Formats: sequence, C-alpha cells, structure tokens
Amino acid sequence: MKLVIINGPNLNLLGKREPGIYGNTTFEKYFDELTSRFDVELEYFQSNSEGSLVDKIQEVGFSVQGIIINAGAYTHTSVALADAIRAIDAPVIEVHISNTAARESFRHHSFISPVCLGTITGFGLNSYELAIRALIMKGE
Amino acid sequence: MKLVIINGPNLNLLGKREPGIYGNTTFEKYFDELTSRFDVELEYFQSNSEGSLVDKIQEVGFSVQGIIINAGAYTHTSVALADAIRAIDAPVIEVHISNTAARESFRHHSFISPVCLGTITGFGLNSYELAIRALIMKGE
Amino acid sequence: MKLVIINGPNLNLLGKREPGIYGNTTFEKYFDELTSRFDVELEYFQSNSEGSLVDKIQEVGFSVQGIIINAGAYTHTSVALADAIRAIDAPVIEVHISNTAARESFRHHSFISPVCLGTITGFGLNSYELAIRALIMKGE
Amino acid sequence: MKLVIINGPNLNLLGKREPGIYGNTTFEKYFDELTSRFDVELEYFQSNSEGSLVDKIQEVGFSVQGIIINAGAYTHTSVALADAIRAIDAPVIEVHISNTAARESFRHHSFISPVCLGTITGFGLNSYELAIRALIMKGE
Amino acid sequence: MKLVIINGPNLNLLGKREPGIYGNTTFEKYFDELTSRFDVELEYFQSNSEGSLVDKIQEVGFSVQGIIINAGAYTHTSVALADAIRAIDAPVIEVHISNTAARESFRHHSFISPVCLGTITGFGLNSYELAIRALIMKGE
Amino acid sequence: MKLVIINGPNLNLLGKREPGIYGNTTFEKYFDELTSRFDVELEYFQSNSEGSLVDKIQEVGFSVQGIIINAGAYTHTSVALADAIRAIDAPVIEVHISNTAARESFRHHSFISPVCLGTITGFGLNSYELAIRALIMKGE
Amino acid sequence: MKLVIINGPNLNLLGKREPGIYGNTTFEKYFDELTSRFDVELEYFQSNSEGSLVDKIQEVGFSVQGIIINAGAYTHTSVALADAIRAIDAPVIEVHISNTAARESFRHHSFISPVCLGTITGFGLNSYELAIRALIMKGE
Amino acid sequence: MKLVIINGPNLNLLGKREPGIYGNTTFEKYFDELTSRFDVELEYFQSNSEGSLVDKIQEVGFSVQGIIINAGAYTHTSVALADAIRAIDAPVIEVHISNTAARESFRHHSFISPVCLGTITGFGLNSYELAIRALIMKGE
Amino acid sequence: MKLVIINGPNLNLLGKREPGIYGNTTFEKYFDELTSRFDVELEYFQSNSEGSLVDKIQEVGFSVQGIIINAGAYTHTSVALADAIRAIDAPVIEVHISNTAARESFRHHSFISPVCLGTITGFGLNSYELAIRALIMKGE
Amino acid sequence: MKLVIINGPNLNLLGKREPGIYGNTTFEKYFDELTSRFDVELEYFQSNSEGSLVDKIQEVGFSVQGIIINAGAYTHTSVALADAIRAIDAPVIEVHISNTAARESFRHHSFISPVCLGTITGFGLNSYELAIRALIMKGE
Amino acid sequence: MKLVIINGPNLNLLGKREPGIYGNTTFEKYFDELTSRFDVELEYFQSNSEGSLVDKIQEVGFSVQGIIINAGAYTHTSVALADAIRAIDAPVIEVHISNTAARESFRHHSFISPVCLGTITGFGLNSYELAIRALIMKGE
Amino acid sequence: MKLVIINGPNLNLLGKREPGIYGNTTFEKYFDELTSRFDVELEYFQSNSEGSLVDKIQEVGFSVQGIIINAGAYTHTSVALADAIRAIDAPVIEVHISNTAARESFRHHSFISPVCLGTITGFGLNSYELAIRALIMKGE
Repeated sequence: MKLVIINGPNLNLLGKREPGIYGNTTFEKYFDELTSRFDVELEYFQSNSEGSLVDKIQEVGFSVQGIIINAGAYTHTSVALADAIRAIDAPVIEVHISNTAARESFRHHSFISPVCLGTITGFGLNSYELAIRALIMKGE
Repeated sequence: MKLVIINGPNLNLLGKREPGIYGNTTFEKYFDELTSRFDVELEYFQSNSEGSLVDKIQEVGFSVQGIIINAGAYTHTSVALADAIRAIDAPVIEVHISNTAARESFRHHSFISPVCLGTITGFGLNSYELAIRALIMKGE
Repeated sequence: MKLVIINGPNLNLLGKREPGIYGNTTFEKYFDELTSRFDVELEYFQSNSEGSLVDKIQEVGFSVQGIIINAGAYTHTSVALADAIRAIDAPVIEVHISNTAARESFRHHSFISPVCLGTITGFGLNSYELAIRALIMKGE
Repeated sequence: MKLVIINGPNLNLLGKREPGIYGNTTFEKYFDELTSRFDVELEYFQSNSEGSLVDKIQEVGFSVQGIIINAGAYTHTSVALADAIRAIDAPVIEVHISNTAARESFRHHSFISPVCLGTITGFGLNSYELAIRALIMKGE
Repeated sequence: MKLVIINGPNLNLLGKREPGIYGNTTFEKYFDELTSRFDVELEYFQSNSEGSLVDKIQEVGFSVQGIIINAGAYTHTSVALADAIRAIDAPVIEVHISNTAARESFRHHSFISPVCLGTITGFGLNSYELAIRALIMKGE
Repeated sequence: MKLVIINGPNLNLLGKREPGIYGNTTFEKYFDELTSRFDVELEYFQSNSEGSLVDKIQEVGFSVQGIIINAGAYTHTSVALADAIRAIDAPVIEVHISNTAARESFRHHSFISPVCLGTITGFGLNSYELAIRALIMKGE
Repeated sequence: MKLVIINGPNLNLLGKREPGIYGNTTFEKYFDELTSRFDVELEYFQSNSEGSLVDKIQEVGFSVQGIIINAGAYTHTSVALADAIRAIDAPVIEVHISNTAARESFRHHSFISPVCLGTITGFGLNSYELAIRALIMKGE
Repeated sequence: MKLVIINGPNLNLLGKREPGIYGNTTFEKYFDELTSRFDVELEYFQSNSEGSLVDKIQEVGFSVQGIIINAGAYTHTSVALADAIRAIDAPVIEVHISNTAARESFRHHSFISPVCLGTITGFGLNSYELAIRALIMKGE
Repeated sequence: MKLVIINGPNLNLLGKREPGIYGNTTFEKYFDELTSRFDVELEYFQSNSEGSLVDKIQEVGFSVQGIIINAGAYTHTSVALADAIRAIDAPVIEVHISNTAARESFRHHSFISPVCLGTITGFGLNSYELAIRALIMKGE
Repeated sequence: MKLVIINGPNLNLLGKREPGIYGNTTFEKYFDELTSRFDVELEYFQSNSEGSLVDKIQEVGFSVQGIIINAGAYTHTSVALADAIRAIDAPVIEVHISNTAARESFRHHSFISPVCLGTITGFGLNSYELAIRALIMKGE
Repeated sequence: MKLVIINGPNLNLLGKREPGIYGNTTFEKYFDELTSRFDVELEYFQSNSEGSLVDKIQEVGFSVQGIIINAGAYTHTSVALADAIRAIDAPVIEVHISNTAARESFRHHSFISPVCLGTITGFGLNSYELAIRALIMKGE
Repeated sequence: MKLVIINGPNLNLLGKREPGIYGNTTFEKYFDELTSRFDVELEYFQSNSEGSLVDKIQEVGFSVQGIIINAGAYTHTSVALADAIRAIDAPVIEVHISNTAARESFRHHSFISPVCLGTITGFGLNSYELAIRALIMKGE
C-alpha cells in the first residue's frame, strides 16, 4: 500500500514560523515519525505552485492507494485542484491543521471537499495520522 | 477516560432505512463493536429533540474527557447546540457519516464547526472511530 | 387505508385565538367532521416540539398509507423534519391554512416541500380535506 | 357555476412529449374526463403567449366563478399575469403538475402565488381536479 | 409634431376596475381630453403582449417626434422593450400612474429607465400630460 | 399583577460557567432578589427546548400581565416562538444579557423582536429588572 | 400658492462647473426665469448640509402648498430627509436633472421616492418646471 | 451624576406631528417631567445635523456619567456617530421610541448598537426613563 | 438535412439600425448568402413575441435536424423558451452576434444555454455560419 | 497564418481518463488531425500552471494571428489570464468541450469571456475546429 | 504651490484619545512639523459635518494645487463628498491613518476612492506626508 | 537596509504594451532610476506565477527590511500570497499603478491589503517610490 501526502502553499514553513503556536517540529521531522508508525509506503510532496500540485496529483493519482492533501490557501480558490482530484482513481482525503471554520470567512468554503472521500480538520499535525488511518480502514 | 457519542435527529434510523446504502448494521451494534475496540468508557445517546441534545451536552460536558457529536440536521440550523458546546469544558469533535460538502447547499454550513475541536466528515461509520482516536491522541 | 394528520407549533390554538379570523371551530372538532366524511382511518397528532414531530413521523411513517403535515413555523426552519420525511416510506403532503406566499418573506421558503409528494396551500381548513382526497386519488 | 382552466407555455405538449413520464393522455382527453366528473361548466384555454394569457384572464375574470391556472414557465417570470389576477373578480387557484420545489432553483419562486387564493402543487394531473374541488368547497 | 402613447399590460382596465381608487374615467376618455389640450398629433396604443409592444415601438420609432410609454408590469421584466427603445430614433419618456417606489420591491427596478430620456412617476393620469409637456419643451 | 420570566437554552448555566465573566450568581438567586424588589407576582421558567418554551408561552400568555423572555439562541432561529408570541394576549418584552449587536453576525437578527412590545439588550442581569419596570410603567 | 425649491449638495455649482455639459446658466438665473413663468410664489433654498435640508423641510413643510426637492447625493444615503418629508403636510416632488438610472448603480436607489408624491427625472432643468406644473395640476 | 439626552433628526417634531399617535406632549415637556423624577443632573440636546450630534458627543463625552441617544434616522446610516461614541469615555445607551424591528427593513440595522452599552427599544417615551434607570443601576 | 434559424426580438432591425456598426446587410440578405453556401435546407423565422418563438420551436422541433436560435433579449428573461427547447427532439445551438459577456451584467446570464447543445457568441453574423457547421459536423 | 491552441489544467488527461465519455483520442492525436485539415500553421501548448499559461500568451500574443484557449478550471478563477489576453495583439477565442452552463454553478462565470473575441462552448473537440474556422473567417 | 489637508469626523480627537495607540501628538502639532518640512503653502481644515466638508472642498477646489483628504467615517457613507471631489479641478488624494482593510467590513468600501487621484492607507500620520510628496512629484 | 520590489503577472509588459498610456519606460529602466535615487539596497523580482511569487516572499521575507509588492491580478484572487505575507517578518507594502477602485468591480477587493502594512494606489510608477519612502520613514 502506497500513500502520498501533498502539502500546498506556505506549509513548508511549518516548524519554522510562529514556533510558539506550531512548535519546533518541521513537517519533514513529523513525516519521519509518521513513516515509522505505519506499515505503508509514504511519499511526501510540497509546493507553493497550484500547477505543480495539479501535476503531482495527476502523476501519482492512477497508481497509489490514497492521497492526503492539505491544499492550504488553494483549498479556497482552486477549481483546478478539484478537477484533478475528480479525474484520478485514488481516493483523496482533505486535511487541515487548524479549524478553518473558526477563522476568516473566506476559509469556510473548500472547492475540494465535494470531490474528496472525506475531510479531517482541526487536529493539528494529528490530522495527517488520522487520514492515514482512514485510508487503511477503508482498504481493510 | 470517558467519552460520549451523541447522535442527533433521524440517526436512530441507521441500519433500518435504506439498507442498500447504509448496510444492515444499526448504530447500537456498531457501538458495541466500537466499545470492544477501545480501552475507554463509552456512552451513547441519541435524540430527535434539539433541547434534549442541549440537555445532554450540559449534563456530561463538565465531567467527561470528550464528546463526539453527529448533530445531523441540527448541524445546519442550531445556534443552541453551538452555544452549549461553547459553554462546557469537554472537547467536542463533530462527525458526519456522509460527505456533507457533496450534498445540498444548505448542508454546507455548520453552526457547530467553529466551536468544536475539529471535524471528521465522510468516512461512513468509521468517522466515529477516527474521532475516538483523535480524542485519545489529544489526551496522550 | 390509514392516514395521519400532523400539526406543528401553535396550531393547537386554532379556534381559540383570533376567532374573528379563524372561527370558533377547534381543530379537534374539524377533525371529527373530517373523520365522518371519509371511509379511511384517520389519526391526529399535534406538538409544539420539533423533536416530537420527528419522532411521530418516524413512528407512523413505515406503516400508514399517507401523512398530511402542517409543520407551521418549522416549515421554514427545520431540516430535521425534511430528513425524517425523506427517510420514511409513506407519502407526505404538505398543507397550509393561509397563503404563505402572501405573508412575510421568511415564510416563502419551505424546507419540506422538496421531499413531500405535493403541497396544498391557502384553502383554510379545506386544505386538509383536499390533501386526504389527493392521497385517496393517488391510491386508486 | 362556470370555471375556466388556463394552461401556459409548453403545456400543449402534454401527452405528446416524454410519454414514459407523463403518459399518453393529452390534456384535451383529461379535460373531457374532468368535465364528465363534475356538474359544473368547464372551459379550457392554452397559449404559449404571456399576452394572450393576460387577455384571457381579463376576458373571463369578471364573469366566471373561478379560474384554475397552470402558468408554466411564466409562473416564475411574469408580473403581468400577477397584475391581471389581482385586477379581476374571480378567485384564481394556481396549480402545478410537478413538484416545482424539487426542481431547479429558478422554479422555486412564483410571482402569482401571492395573488391567488391558494396553490396546489405536485399531484400530476390530479392537481387540476383538486383545484376544482377547492373552488366548489369554497362556493358551498 | 406627432407623439404616441403606448400602454402596457392591464392598463386597458383603467376606469373599469377599482373605480373607488382610479375613478370612472377610461383611458380612452382621458386620451380624448389630452388630444384637445395640445396642438400636437397624438396616437394611442395598448397591448397586453410584450411582443406587440416591441412591434409598435419599432413601427413608430423612426418617424414620430416622441413616445410616452407606461410599460406596466413589463417595466420590471422586459429586456426586449429596453432594446427596442435603444434601437429607435424617437425620444421615449417612461411614465407611471402610481408611485412604484412605494409599492412591492419587485416594482422598484425598471429595465427601461436607463434607455429613456426621463421618467415621470406617481402623478396619476397627469403623468401622461406632464410627459407631453416634457417632449414639447424638449422640441422647443 | 403577575409576570413571567422565560429563559431559553443554556441560560440555566448562568453563574455556573465562566464565573470570571458572569459572576457567581445563578439566575435562581438573582430571581429571588428580583422578587423581593417588586410588589408583583413573579414566576420563572427555563428550558433548553424550543417546544417547551412555546408550550409555556401558550400556557401563561392568556392570563398573565406580561412576559419577559430571553430566548437565548432561539432568538435567532425560531419562527415558532415568534408565532406563539404573536398569538397570545400578554405583552412580551425581549431581553438579552449581552450586547448581541457586538457579537457574531448571526446574533444580529431576532425573529421575535418584531412581535414583542420592546427590547432591552446589553445591561447584564439588570436587563430583566428594567423589563419589569417597563411592564409596570405600561400598566400604570 | 407658495412653492419651495430645495436643492441639495453640489447643486450650487450648476452653471459654474462643466459648462460644456450643463451650460452657463446658474440655478439662480434659471430660478428667475421660472419665477417669471408662473403665477405662484416661489422660494429657493440650497445647502450642502443634510441637517440644514432637514431644518428647511420642517420650517416650510407645514405652511407652503408644495416642495420640489433635488436632494442630490443625499437622495441615495439619507433616511433623515425621508423622515422629514414623511412628517410634514406639504406634498413633495422629487426631481433630478440627469437620468439617474443611467448612471452608477449607487444612484439607482432613492430613500425619498417612496415618501414623495411623485418623481420627475432626466429632463435637465426642465424637471423643475414640470414639477411646478404637477403641483399646480394637483391643486386644480 | 450628570447625564445627557441627545435626540437626532426629526425628533424635534415630537408632540407636534401626528398627535393621534404620539400624543400632544412635546419632548421638552416630557424632559421636565423626567428631570423632576430623578435626583440627577439632566441636559437635553437635539439637532437635525449629523455633524452637530458628533460635536455634542465629543463635547460632553469626557465629563458626564452617561449619554442617552436616540439617533433617529442617523441610527441606520451614520458611521461617524458610532466612531464618536467609540472614542469617548462616557457609557452610551441607545434608545428608540418605536419598535424599529417592526418597521421598514432599512431600520433593522443600527451602526451604533455595537458601540453602545445597551439598547432600549419600543417603549414610547418610557424608553428614555428606562435608560436613565439603567445608567443609575450601572453606577450603583 | 433541414435546419431552422430563429431570431428573437429586435433582430429584424439588423442592417437597418446603426449601420455604422452593423453594416448595411439585412439578415434576409445574409440568409440568402448562407443558403447558397451550404447544401442543406434552411428556413428563417423571426418574431418579437416570446409566445410566437415558443410556437415555432414546437412546430419544427420534432421534424428538423437542428435549430439555431438567437433569442436576443429573451435569452436573459425567458424560462418558457428554455422549456420549449428542452421538450423538443432537435438539437439547438444558441448564437449571439455580439460578445454578451462584455456588455451589461443582465446579459451575462442565459436561461437557454443549459438546454442547448452548445453556444457560439461574439463572431458577428459569422456566428450563424459556425453554428450550421457545428450541426453538420455533429451529423457526420 | 499561424494559430496557437492553448489548453489549461487537466486537459492533458483527455483521452486517458473517462474514455467512456471522452473516447480514446488524446488531444495530441486530435491535434494531428486538425493540422491536416487546415492550411494554417498550428502550434499546441498545454500546462497545468496558471503562470505558464500567462507566459505562453505573452510569448506568442504579439506575433501569431490568433489564439484558441481552453483555460479549463482557470476560466473561472484567473484574472491573470484575462489581463494577459487584454494586453496582447492577437485575437483570442475561448473554447470549451462541455456545455459549462449545464454544469456546477461555479463554472457559469468566465473571467476571460469579456476580453476574448468570442466563445464556442459545448461541441466536444469540434469546438476547437470551429474556433479555427472563426479565425480564418475573420481573417478573410 | 498651495495644498489643503481636510480631515473628517472625529479626527479632531487625535492625540487626545487613546494615547497608548495614537501617541500624544495632536494633529495641529503634526501639521506644524509638516509645514516646516516642505516648501509649499499648507492649509488645514477639520469638521465633523459632511456639509461643511463639501463646502470646503468647493471653496478651495478651484484654486489650490491639491487636496489631501482623510474623510474618516464619511469615507464609507458619503456620496456628497465624492460628488464634490468629482466637480472640482484640484487633484485629491485620499489618506487613512489605519489600515482600513484590516478593520470592520463596513470600512472596506470607500465612496471617494474612485474619484481621487490615488489612495494612501495604513502608514499612521506618515500617510499625510506621503500624500504631499505624491502631489509634489505629480507637479514636477 | 535592503528592500525588495516584487511584481506580479503581466507587469513584465510595462513599457512594452500600450505605450500611449504607460509611456516607453520599461520597469527595468525605472528600477535603475529608483536605485540611483535612494541609499538603500534594492532588488527586483517579477513572475507571472503565483507559486513563484510565494516562493520569493518566503525566500526574502525573513532577512530584508521591507517588501513592496504589486501583485497585479493575483491581488484579487490569491489567498496564498496573503498567507505568505502574514507568515514572514518583513513589513510589506501593497502598491498599484492605476486606481483600482475606478476599474472593474472584481478589482475592488484585495486579499493582501489586510496583511500589509499599508497600501499606495493610483500614482503611476510613483507608487513604488512612495512605498520606498514609507519604508524608510518607518525605519527612522
């Protein structure tokens, strides 16, 4: 079983900005922990570019068993990502670190929610682990 | 550790209506399975009445370690539930069985999302199990 | 053939308030007249509670041949009632005594219209009798 | 007692198009059946033109005892029809064959509902018969 | 100098309906009075059909010195009338008998106002006479 | 003179939650103080259920001299409460402890304001005392 | 018969700004012409201040036979002017020099239209003369 | 203790216009009564000008113990008044004589409510007295 | 193969009005050219009446191989035309001479686009020729 | 004559995804056919990146005779593409394979329509061929 | 070169209210500093009255070389100020001390921005100095 | 002191397109002039790609003393840019060459304004120089 985690814009700053809030753990470190916890093959990809995210989804979307995407700001503005998710075979789970419903109103709408299998929002980095479990449970 | 699962209106029909879609498992049976899988005390409550749901949240919200709520239709119409959740001490996780973002537009807004710890949507009954795991991970 | 008439909030005041407008006939008296006019079994239920109305719809919705509902104010605010109607087997007809389209704008939208068989609005108490006829015609 | 049934645009195609859905009965045949069922004088008029419908309402609206109108698409766009109905003496009942609330959102608003006596929606061709009964009950 | 008065739907009922409000004067009688008051050639046309009103505007719009139009209900719904007015050479004045701004909100928007020379609203039948004066003053 | 104070959902938590903000006084204690300050008969009722609040309004609305209602969250969502208030004889005053206009936008609209005698908002528990004075002044 | 013309903000610049469009005639000169044309007493008042316009309406509104107001920009923003017009006895006519419906969308709504007798828009300075005629015709 | 009552546009007409509704009492007479009822220093100010109202709020807002403002029409249109209230030290109470929620929709929003201590609406002239009591209770 | 071109309101003025923009070619002349260019039977129909356009669509819609419609102003206001197009068998192509997306906002929505095979907009009279080609390509 | 076809995000999947709907033809194969059909130089470019699409438009927009763009999802979200099209010299035609007006509401608005020469929507791959013909006709 | 700085409502309180935020510098002191920094004639005017601000703009707008306006709250509500700015000859620059886009939503729209030369927002008192530089650079 | 100027999509065409409006100066030439005018280190970056702009902001945002950004079309559509600006340490100033408030309505909203220090709009290329001065003044 192979799963891919895709992070969108500004998520490369995790663990580097606002450590008082987000802690000192970079996503790369967290990803290593995640990898050690599950008996599945995990890949990680991050980009600030909407087009590169679409490219990646297309590249892996016909061969892996699941994608976990935190599209960051593109969640709220990108029809292209939604179309890419709709086009591929792999199930996609949308995750968010913070509770987007409790933030600015322009973060309340997600273009990708309707085309994802499900959404996990608000659990910090744990949102990713829960998404992996969801994909494993689905595969069982 | 004690957790409470609260189901809102019409969720008592699970496993009884539309078995072709939802299967033949009632929530009671699923709850028994859930109970056996985790080493936590679980309680289950269901009501079709908004007021009774508020009563229950108040009753348990100052003593248990977490609440998992599927508010059903009241998700989209009840400020009273949101106020109850805001008032209590226990962390609350919002779950949905179906992907509400892919359904009618009046199901796209949740009054309770902003006051919950997080939201897990679209994984069928597995949404409840993921929510329990989220509360356990949070407690660790 | 068994049919159930379900009245929502404040309809228990019919015949008691504003007699200059609504006359002195209580719904109970009118219900007796209705019963004598048709060769069908009729049951009557009224509640001011959204939850109790959902309970009743679930209770009778899998065994009777039709439900006639005047959801009163919940017509305009209750997704829970709409979900209950969608879940059951019996056909449901929505009735209103007054012409809701000619009243305040918040009465122009009905959450339950899309899930009912049809709607009869504006004929005073006759709306109920027309609904019974509609269910009988459908059964023929 | 004389009543007039007025059908708006495209209703002349009933029984001719989409027979799988609407059956093979033309409105003319149904009108003959209706005529034989009631001891009232019935007239039928259909036009695809908003202006001709206004003309007809004015022509009969000061002498007949009731009008039953299915304004079809003009229901949602015609202020002129609403003004005509408001101007005449005869009571007017709005009918629809399908459940318009369950269709496209532009069919959810009716300009004529507020100026009609009442509305009967969603009962197929039976909507017309129910409207005749409503006018007879009103006259009693 | 030749001017044409064009009245839209339901304005043929003036003086016939609601005499308590509008008086017993038909528009034809008022038109005779108007004709006698001014030294200009006046023509009168009324139709309940949007298409006939467009036809008439096109017919006279390239030869007369002015058009006075009370488009009635089509004021609020007809882009076709606005396009016809925009296409012709003659100046057009929009008139209304009642104060449309004090009536239902759907009467507050006029599709034809932006393409007319000006608008005169709320002066009863005097609106027409003022419009004739406006055209004469413009011609001077 | 008999007056009834009706409190809606979550107001039973007053004095128990967030004491730093609301103080340690429960509404029951405050009600005792209120009773001692005025020479009128006072009754107190609280429920988290919309239906029970409607029931109570109907029960006392035809016999007491005034009702003071803090409908809490139902202020913003309940047409049923508004209909109940409209139906009864007693004058009703709407009160709020906090300044709802300074809070979330969904708290800015009240369904019950238009059918109440008046509204008193933002004075803490003093809002209730001012409402009693308003009813006494009205009775004088 | 005494009539008052009241001009709102920036209308004191007429004839001074944009002479290519508005000509070289100041409103004062035009007012002299108007005065000579009619056998009525005319007064003229202009202010850039909303409050002074309210003051003037109150001052003359109980004694003169009519007011002609071009409220300029306050047309679109002033509830205070509308309330003043509603409070007085004299009939008020709203005039505009340009066709406001053909300008920016924020000029399409007038707070004062619903409380005026009528509106005359788009005829240049002739709008004022037509308004005087309308008041004279009304007085006849 | 010194309190100031500030009335906005058109409130100088109280007792002079529509006596059938508002009675024959001018605000000045009512103010005299008010003064005699309370052992506090009261000042009264009225203006039809938004700017003068802002001036007055600034003038007294740093020295008196409370302001009672009925901003009339400016309630619904003035950000300037709201900014003035936010800037000063004295607590401000918003009052209205009529129930604004039961009137035109443009009267349902108040720019000043969020920056006032509280709001008292719908009690006729008694609204002012209740506001004085509210300020006294607050001061105790 | 037989195709019908249907033009809506004001399109009969093509070549007659605004020749500087639209040239001196009437649609009739252009239609002759079109006829000579293709080996298909072409019919042309124009009307200013919505009802007549519906009539024509119904008349030819069950026998011809395609309809090309420029509904003019009715594009933006007519549900009746959309219903007629939905009801018939022939494929319908929507054309516009000008780029409607670059004009007034009320021209940006088309009721008929969703029920047409496709839309060709902005190519002047060439839009019609492209539509014929599209129908021929579809038939191949 | 040189023309460039530019395809936006996810259009590289044509012929690879959902073959039941779109067939087995990739755009590359279709492009070869197109090239053989016309005596013009054709270039093809596809990218999932908004920025690369802007780059390409700028690169070719000052030298070629026309651009045919299917901006895919960026149609509905990209002001940058619209600005690029507005800036260049070459005429641009917008094409869509499917009938976007019959799909989700967020696909009904196009940022690029107002700055293109015209739009061709809904004819499958034929939309591209029609666009080439439109450019050739324009060049003739 | 003569420039005028015009400040709107409540800006006379600068340096007097909320010194923790705005400092102790009054605008008068800051204006003295500004005057000493530039070799241009500077005038300063402040008023809480919309009408007085319009008066001032008209008074200086035809003779000075530039106006710098901070319209305060009137920025968001005054069409009259926008009309005055549009009418005069002098270029006008809009300034704001705070970042209005980061404040309440009713501060996000400015009626005067479209008629000003440009806007400088968010730089504290430095916004004024930047505006003077902008006018000098423009004059060079 | 080091500052970075970042230009968004299509701004690389400055001085190349529409020279009649923008002049013949490319941004590169203007940048050279700017560099010579100030004693600060200046860097210039332009990209048509949203992702590359985010990359650049992240790259320089933790080390330079200020960023001046003209996000072009992405101003109105990019949440990702706003998030990047919020995440970094350097103050950011938003500039625009034209007066965006006087252009199409979709240019009136900026996602980045609320997270920038301030905004300078409408001064042509001078907007950049003013922004540099603002950063220098801030640093002083």
